[in-house]
Amino acid sequence: MNTSLKIIGYVQSDFKKRSDTPRQGDEGGIVATLHIEDEFRDAMDGLKVGMEIVLLTWLHEADRNYLKVHPRGNESIPMRGVFSTRSPDRPNPIGMHPVTITYIDRESIKVTPLEAIDGTLLLDIKNA
Amino acid sequence: MNTSLKIIGYVQSDFKKRSDTPRQGDEGGIVATLHIEDEFRDAMDGLKVGMEIVLLTWLHEADRNYLKVHPRGNESIPMRGVFSTRSPDRPNPIGMHPVTITYIDRESIKVTPLEAIDGTLLLDIKNA
Repeated sequence: MNTSLKIIGYVQSDFKKRSDTPRQGDEGGIVATLHIEDEFRDAMDGLKVGMEIVLLTWLHEADRNYLKVHPRGNESIPMRGVFSTRSPDRPNPIGMHPVTITYIDRESIKVTPLEAIDGTLLLDIKNA
Repeated sequence: MNTSLKIIGYVQSDFKKRSDTPRQGDEGGIVATLHIEDEFRDAMDGLKVGMEIVLLTWLHEADRNYLKVHPRGNESIPMRGVFSTRSPDRPNPIGMHPVTITYIDRESIKVTPLEAIDGTLLLDIKNA
């Protein structure tokens, strides 16, 4: 079985570093632009301004070796398995982001509120 | 960047074929068992009965070559880009399943309502 991921595009954002970003989109996410690779643009048909979608991303700065973390990076909270958290540090650092489309053209989509940093890889877009 | 997926476990379900299953978990999903691979079990710490979680899976029977589909497999609905649908047939066939934990032990988790078929690969578990 071929489970190798296809990169369908990437995120362009004013958030440049992981330390700049809120922990979730609804905690201070911003408008960001998704650039879709040419070969996947036919899959954008049907997306419209105002539509609620879910982005799946590959969080390229995450550490894949963590099995336990302090929730929300707060060291006063005891460590817990990553599967009971939303930590980006996990075996498969796939981000899940509910957002709304604010603009769309043939090759790009603006969405809000997104907390992913500039250069984050895009894996999928789904109807919410 | 290493984007190769780690398989953290797999789904055991009474749904054996894709044609048996509802289109979404809330349309007739059932109780299914998640078997977690030994090396990832420490990441289960903190999961509890009653907790709402989101599973990310690899839909191993999906066709990755589709960019457009008839929504819900209904040929009377015009074809649309897969990114505006929830079709399993898409460039990266990653399933997203909101479920509730009904049982947990050291190596397995029962969840409901799940529509994924027997043998579906498990990629991630997140706090909902």
